[in-house]
Formats: sequence, structure tokens, C-alpha cells
Amino acid sequence: MVLVDIGNTNFHIWQNGKIKHSKEIKRLSGEIFYISVNRQKEEVLLSLNPEAVNLKNYVNFNTNYKGLGIDRIMACKSITAGVVIDAGSAITIDVMEKGFHKGGIIMPGIYAFKKAFGTISEVLKFNEHIVTDEILPNSTNDALNMGSIGAVKCIIEKYAKNKKLFFTGSDGKFLSHMFINAEYIEDLVFRGMLLTIEEVKKSY
Amino acid sequence: MVLVDIGNTNFHIWQNGKIKHSKEIKRLSGEIFYISVNRQKEEVLLSLNPEAVNLKNYVNFNTNYKGLGIDRIMACKSITAGVVIDAGSAITIDVMEKGFHKGGIIMPGIYAFKKAFGTISEVLKFNEHIVTDEILPNSTNDALNMGSIGAVKCIIEKYAKNKKLFFTGSDGKFLSHMFINAEYIEDLVFRGMLLTIEEVKKSY
Repeated sequence: MVLVDIGNTNFHIWQNGKIKHSKEIKRLSGEIFYISVNRQKEEVLLSLNPEAVNLKNYVNFNTNYKGLGIDRIMACKSITAGVVIDAGSAITIDVMEKGFHKGGIIMPGIYAFKKAFGTISEVLKFNEHIVTDEILPNSTNDALNMGSIGAVKCIIEKYAKNKKLFFTGSDGKFLSHMFINAEYIEDLVFRGMLLTIEEVKKSY
Repeated sequence: MVLVDIGNTNFHIWQNGKIKHSKEIKRLSGEIFYISVNRQKEEVLLSLNPEAVNLKNYVNFNTNYKGLGIDRIMACKSITAGVVIDAGSAITIDVMEKGFHKGGIIMPGIYAFKKAFGTISEVLKFNEHIVTDEILPNSTNDALNMGSIGAVKCIIEKYAKNKKLFFTGSDGKFLSHMFINAEYIEDLVFRGMLLTIEEVKKSY
């Protein structure tokens, strides 16, 4: 069985518990289940693997959120309570309570923040580092870091309170280091996909 | 006398207490004083007005911040205590205490946030609105608004505490509506420039 999570930038491919990230996809073997937030990349997958099954059509998820991305649904699906942060091209922050999705926030990803600053002025460059305290920045590097990484931290803290935090995505591990009650789960989206497959198979 | 504040996107021109914003500049009459954060635009001003005086070379400002933008210096110069927010192409947040600049933060401006989301995915579009509470978003529009406007609010609140807030810049008025202890001052940067000119004239 192969699971494919098609993001805005990469194909994330799960096989036998191992995850690969790639800008391209090829012909895969065995049962293929996928989710996608990028129609063009999805068409590429399907042209090579027409039998691949879109789990979007089978997933059960409790939320009042209109138009919640399927990647966010899958990242949250295996979490009963806590805050789920998926930090990739975008950073999504979703709150789960008693198996119900209470709502969420979308921020630019770290790379998107850097690109945004770069389009304003070529001098607005920085190297990201974790924000551990509330000291006021006294350099451009720290000011930009606080205005991006610090802003992500600020929003997460606002909704986290005493909840457990679950991080995933390419920048998830880095961001998780700013919090005490945090866990980084590389395969969080795939756990949701596996749970969905299990539920579907049970229902037949 | 004409004052010109050259930003990353526009020329901001002050004359007899009136402010104009323009992508272009022409030959001006009378004494000309300017500040600039954009070298190309500065060269255009100087080619047409070679006698214009760069106030950067004359300003006194107390800070430990390395490389603080001259626009931020001028926005803060007339403020003894409080938080100064200049919301243009970028949003800068600077803290003043007893006439000393304690440090500051740089965030993307509202337009830059929108462009950043747009480069991640074409579906990530939103209309900005003020964030008045901590309700969790349940739509893409609200999720993006909270991840940008809400993030700006979060960072300002973190440093504001009980300080007075002074807003300026093209989005300053809009952002000021999210706070109680806030004032919007359209000519805040020019007040700093006028104060600088006054100080220089006194010192001769």
C-alpha cells in the first residue's frame, strides 16, 4: 500500500512506514490512496496511476469549518484533543476538542514569510531562530524573525493555553522547539489517512 | 518647505501640512528635506532636485538597534513613550520609553501577507477585517485574516501592555480600530522630520 499526500509544493509519499518528499511522482505499485490540495499535481498522479483512490471522498470528520483543506482534516483526524500545527508552504493551526474540530488559522510558511519580506525590500533578509523570550529585537535579523517566527508563536500560544501541541510538516520540528507541551509527529497526516482507510474497510 | 518620505512603494510628500502619496516625483520648489529607504527612488528625487537635504545625516535618536530604518526613526522621534506602528509595505512596531527606542519588530504589510498567501495557493484569498475577539475561525477567509491581521494584533498586544499606541501608514487607521488605547497620526513621520529640522536650526 502507498499513501500520497499532495501538497502545494511537494508530493509526500508513505510506504511501509517510510516517508519520502519529492517534487515529482512516478508510476507506483500496490494499492494507492491519496489526498491533494493541488489539482495540477493530482492530475499528474492520476495520469500515471489512474487507479489511485482519493480519500477525500471517504473521510468522516466533525467540524463546522467551511472548506477545510483535506490535508488539515487528515492531520487532525487522529488527534482527539489539542492543537495541530502543520508547518509547510503554509502554517495551519487547528484546534481539536473531544474529537471535534473547533476551527483554525492559516499563516504563511517560513519560506513564504521570507519571500514576502524580500518582495518589500532586498535588505529585509533574516535567518530564522527560535523565539524563547519577549526581549525586544535590536537588529533587522531579530526584528524580522520576531515578525514571522515570533508571530507564529504568538498565535499558537493564544489558542494553545494548556492544550497539548502536535507539530508536523517540514518546519514542524523546528517550531516545536519553542513550546514545552509539544510533540513532533512526522507522519501525522498519514496517520489520519490510515485511520480513514481502516474506518472505510470496517464499514464494508 | 517640502518634506519627502521615500518609502519602498511610494513617495510621501508633505507641503503646508498637506500630504500626498505618489509613485512618481517631479521638480519641487522651496527648501526640500527628505528621508529614504529606497535608493532607486532617492536617485530619481535627487536627479530632479539635487539641492534636497537628506535628514538622515542630521538626526539624533537614542537606540541600541543596529541599522534602524530612517522612516522608523522619524516615526518614533516625536514620541516619548508608547508603541509606534507604521503600517505600509511592511508593518514596523517600535517601542519608546522615556525618549529611548527600546527595540522593534518587522512584519509583512497587509498587501504582502495577501501576496504571500497567493503564491502558496490561488485559493488562499481573503478580505481583511478587524479582529475583535478570540473566536476560532471557521472559514478560509477568517482563517487567513486571523493568520495575518490577527498575528499583527497578537504581536502588538504582546509588547503594548498598558502603553499608548500610535499608528501611522496607509493601513494604520484600519489597524488602530482593533485597540482601545490607540491614536492614528497621519503625519507622524513628518512630525519627526520637522522636529529634526527644528533641532538642527537651533544648534546653529
